[in-house]
Amino acid sequence: MNIVLSRDAQVKIMENTVSNAEHYFGQFCSVMASYTRKTAKLRDKADELVKQLIDFGNTENPELRSAMKNMAEELAKIQDYRHAQVERLETKVVAPMKMYGPLIKERRAEIKKFNTVRNKEIKELQKLEKLRHRAPSDRHMIVSAESSVQKASIDAARTTQQLEEVIDNFQQQKIKDIQKIFSDFLTIEMIFHARALEVYTSAFHGLQDCDLEKDMEDFRAKIHINTGTQDARPVPATNVSSNTTWHMSSTVRWRPVTD
Amino acid sequence: MNIVLSRDAQVKIMENTVSNAEHYFGQFCSVMASYTRKTAKLRDKADELVKQLIDFGNTENPELRSAMKNMAEELAKIQDYRHAQVERLETKVVAPMKMYGPLIKERRAEIKKFNTVRNKEIKELQKLEKLRHRAPSDRHMIVSAESSVQKASIDAARTTQQLEEVIDNFQQQKIKDIQKIFSDFLTIEMIFHARALEVYTSAFHGLQDCDLEKDMEDFRAKIHINTGTQDARPVPATNVSSNTTWHMSSTVRWRPVTD
Repeated sequence: MNIVLSRDAQVKIMENTVSNAEHYFGQFCSVMASYTRKTAKLRDKADELVKQLIDFGNTENPELRSAMKNMAEELAKIQDYRHAQVERLETKVVAPMKMYGPLIKERRAEIKKFNTVRNKEIKELQKLEKLRHRAPSDRHMIVSAESSVQKASIDAARTTQQLEEVIDNFQQQKIKDIQKIFSDFLTIEMIFHARALEVYTSAFHGLQDCDLEKDMEDFRAKIHINTGTQDARPVPATNVSSNTTWHMSSTVRWRPVTD
Repeated sequence: MNIVLSRDAQVKIMENTVSNAEHYFGQFCSVMASYTRKTAKLRDKADELVKQLIDFGNTENPELRSAMKNMAEELAKIQDYRHAQVERLETKVVAPMKMYGPLIKERRAEIKKFNTVRNKEIKELQKLEKLRHRAPSDRHMIVSAESSVQKASIDAARTTQQLEEVIDNFQQQKIKDIQKIFSDFLTIEMIFHARALEVYTSAFHGLQDCDLEKDMEDFRAKIHINTGTQDARPVPATNVSSNTTWHMSSTVRWRPVTD
């Protein structure tokens, strides 16, 4: 009877093993899928930044324009790496965790099968116990019940052994997979961060090398006209007409009064 | 009159400088704020993973439990770094970009002031042109109008010079800030990725070192009872009662028939 008791404790451990796997693989799968989606969103947002940097650069003078373009290209490279990271997370982390769903269902079915066999043994033991209590002298019935118990026990022992093997394999596979999946996760992250570090460093040096003073000279040349007080000279009385038309910020068109 | 024309082109460039700054700083500010929020969400998601790893580890045998705990601690460290990254992005990237809002408003007001002065000059020029056309012989009126034009021109020239300085400073500050803000952005990222790479690498080695075979021995000791076919022996007829009670998975309580 202690065997029945032990089996009960044993099956509880097995059931917990499968239940915990179901619970935590489910959680890991969901959190890693969400982590992956959030990484993808970060990639998309950085892609937006890349576009803006190029657009902004195009409104600036050559040095800054080129610096913005280069930085945008480096950031775009990082987003390519991030995209690879997202795909790898999906393939090597989320997908294998998702695969545990059906596997766990199978293990649950096997435990259920075992419980049926175990209940049969318990029923036969109950029968035998009743007989011994109510008809202790009915040797024929008792021997027959003992034989049924023996048969049920053999079944239960065999099923237990099978289940033990199944759960042993399951646990072994599970812990190996946990180690493998999280090693892959860490590797994917290491690769991404190593590349990102490299590219950010290069982008940083590129931005530092940009000679903004050159751009300021260009800018000054554009906004500066040789004015100053000497330009605020009286308009000459001599009215030399010219055919040049010029455009005002208002809709009025003017002919210059002087050249 | 060419000065008026030049000023028109000049102010267009200045207006574009300020408009582009408004447009792109606005965009950068919004995209960087969103990038920062998405990074914060990634941190929160990874924090969830940290908790799950510890909880899961607590359901496992010592080796895996310790491996999960160590990995969780390393991942938590990365989230601390990510938190610092988020705070730095807010302080050193988003905030200084946000500050450009009021600065740009001020520059706009200065351009508007300049436009008022410039329009005054144009009006005086228009007046003079009309006079020359309609009453070319009215020297008195023409001289008076020429004097008004001269006064307006002096004002416009002075304001132009002031505006030139203001916009020159603005552009210089702007391109310096762009270089500074994006250098800070790249530095913040470099620091984060360097630290993350270091910690992920350490986490990876920790996980590789975990001796799962040891855990399997522990697990087998728990799920294995010395069953096998030799346990499926017939229940002995000798009914040695015992006080040990044991619990079935059902609600039935049993007294063992054998010890």
